[in-house]
Amino acid sequence: MDNANTFIRDKLIRFHHCDPAGIVFYPQYFVLFHELVEDWFNHGLQHDYAQLVQAQRLGLPMVRIECDFLSPSTIGEVLTLSLGVRHIGRSSLGLMVEGTAGGKTRVRVALTVVLADVDQLRSVPFPPELRAGIERYRIDS
Amino acid sequence: MDNANTFIRDKLIRFHHCDPAGIVFYPQYFVLFHELVEDWFNHGLQHDYAQLVQAQRLGLPMVRIECDFLSPSTIGEVLTLSLGVRHIGRSSLGLMVEGTAGGKTRVRVALTVVLADVDQLRSVPFPPELRAGIERYRIDS
Amino acid sequence: MDNANTFIRDKLIRFHHCDPAGIVFYPQYFVLFHELVEDWFNHGLQHDYAQLVQAQRLGLPMVRIECDFLSPSTIGEVLTLSLGVRHIGRSSLGLMVEGTAGGKTRVRVALTVVLADVDQLRSVPFPPELRAGIERYRIDS
Amino acid sequence: MDNANTFIRDKLIRFHHCDPAGIVFYPQYFVLFHELVEDWFNHGLQHDYAQLVQAQRLGLPMVRIECDFLSPSTIGEVLTLSLGVRHIGRSSLGLMVEGTAGGKTRVRVALTVVLADVDQLRSVPFPPELRAGIERYRIDS
Repeated sequence: MDNANTFIRDKLIRFHHCDPAGIVFYPQYFVLFHELVEDWFNHGLQHDYAQLVQAQRLGLPMVRIECDFLSPSTIGEVLTLSLGVRHIGRSSLGLMVEGTAGGKTRVRVALTVVLADVDQLRSVPFPPELRAGIERYRIDS
Repeated sequence: MDNANTFIRDKLIRFHHCDPAGIVFYPQYFVLFHELVEDWFNHGLQHDYAQLVQAQRLGLPMVRIECDFLSPSTIGEVLTLSLGVRHIGRSSLGLMVEGTAGGKTRVRVALTVVLADVDQLRSVPFPPELRAGIERYRIDS
Repeated sequence: MDNANTFIRDKLIRFHHCDPAGIVFYPQYFVLFHELVEDWFNHGLQHDYAQLVQAQRLGLPMVRIECDFLSPSTIGEVLTLSLGVRHIGRSSLGLMVEGTAGGKTRVRVALTVVLADVDQLRSVPFPPELRAGIERYRIDS
Repeated sequence: MDNANTFIRDKLIRFHHCDPAGIVFYPQYFVLFHELVEDWFNHGLQHDYAQLVQAQRLGLPMVRIECDFLSPSTIGEVLTLSLGVRHIGRSSLGLMVEGTAGGKTRVRVALTVVLADVDQLRSVPFPPELRAGIERYRIDS
C-alpha cells in the first residue's frame, strides 16, 4: 500500500498478544486494527474516538472482513500498520490495513464497518465534516 | 449450513465478550471460533487438541479469513456454532463456521488454516487418520 | 475450601488462555473467575446474569483482590473452580474462589465486589431475595 | 507513590479495555500492568523483554497480587501508571503499581513475581546486573 494518503502507526507486539507457539494469536491482530482505527480518529481525523462512543453514542461495528495472514509476528517486533480508505458510502466505510515488519507484509485486511447508533444498533449517515476528513485517506484499490 | 456432517457447539455470550455498546466485540468471535475448533478436535475428531499442541508440537495457524457479521449478539444469548469442512489439501484446511441465535445467522466465516510445526513454523501434511476424521465433516459449498 | 456450600464449575484451559510459556496468562484467570460468577448467578442463585446487567442495569465491579498463584496451569487441563461467600454487607460481597487441577490448588483468591448501578456507578443494596440466595453459599473463613 | 525512583508510563484506555458498563473490565488492568513491566524492562532496565523471553527463556510468572480498585476508568482516559520496587529477593520481586487519572488514584496493586525458567518453570536468581538495575527503582513502602 504505497500511498501518501495512508495513516500509519507502529504497534509493539507484546507478550499478551502471543500464543503458546510464541506468535501473535490471530484475534489479537483485530484488537490491534481496532487500536489503529481509534488512533486514526484521534490523530488523523481529529475526531475524538471516546467522544464518538460516549457523547455521540456512535460506533463502527464490523460488517465484513477479508484478511490474509502472510507471515507470523513474534514478541518484541514492531508492526507498522498502515490504513487507507477503499470506499465510503452513506454510512458504510471500507478500509484497507496492512501490517509490515522487517520489510515483510505480515497481514493484510479489507475491513468494512458501518457508522451506527450504539443504542439503537441502526446505521447513521456520516456527518459531512467527518466524511470530508475520511476522504483525505482514500487510496487506489 | 443445513448439513448432517457439521460439528455443532453452543457458546454462551458472556460479559467479557461484550463491548461498551453491549454487543460482542468482534475479535471475541474469533476466540469463540478457536474454542470451536478445539472442541471439534477433542470431541469430533477424537484427537486431543492439547496433545496436538504440546506433545506433537503442531498448530493450526490462520492463513485467510472471510467473515460476514450479519447481526449483533448480546450478553446472555446462546450462539450455536456449526463447523463444516470446505476443503482439505496436503496441509491446508478450509472450514466454514456459522453462528446462529434466535433463528438468525449472526456471523458466517470461511477460515483457511494450515497444519504447521509450531517450533519451525513450517507446514506439515495431515497424518492419514486425522485426514480421514476431517473428511467426515465435509460439506457441499 | 472443603465446604458443602460452595458453587463448583469445571473450566477447560484453552489455547487462548495460555502465553508463550505455555501456561495460563494470569489475567485470564480473572476472566475465568468472572465466568464462574456469571455461572453462579445463572445456575446457583437462579438470577439471570444477563438480565441483571441489561434489564436491571446492575453490575458487580471489583473492589479488592488478594490472589495467590500457587502452581501453573497448562492447556488441556480442567480447572475445578469452587466459589464460597466470605461476607455479605449492604452492597458489598466477599467471595473466595479456589482453582484446583490434578489434586493441587493452582490459584486461590479473595474477591470483594460491590453491587452497583452501572449507569450511575453507585452502590446499591442487595435486594432481599438475592441476598437470601447468596447467604446459602456462605463458608467459614 | 511520590517517589523519584518510580518508572512511569501513560496508557490510553481503549475501547477493547472496556465492558458493557463502559468502564475498564478489571482483568484488562492486569494486561496494562504487564505492558508496564515490559516497558520497564525495555526502557527503564535497558534489558530487552522479548530477548528475556525468547533468547534467555526467562519469564516473570505472577505469585501474588493484592489490588485495590478505587475508582473506575473509562474509554479515552489516560491512565498514568507508576511502578516502584518494594523488595527484591534471590529470585522474587515485589512491585507496587499505581494508576492515576484526573488527579485520582484509580487502582493500586502490590505484585509479587518470580524470575523463572519458562521451560522448566523453576525459579532462577536474578543476574547481578539486572538486580543492580532493579535496585534503582526501590521505593520506601
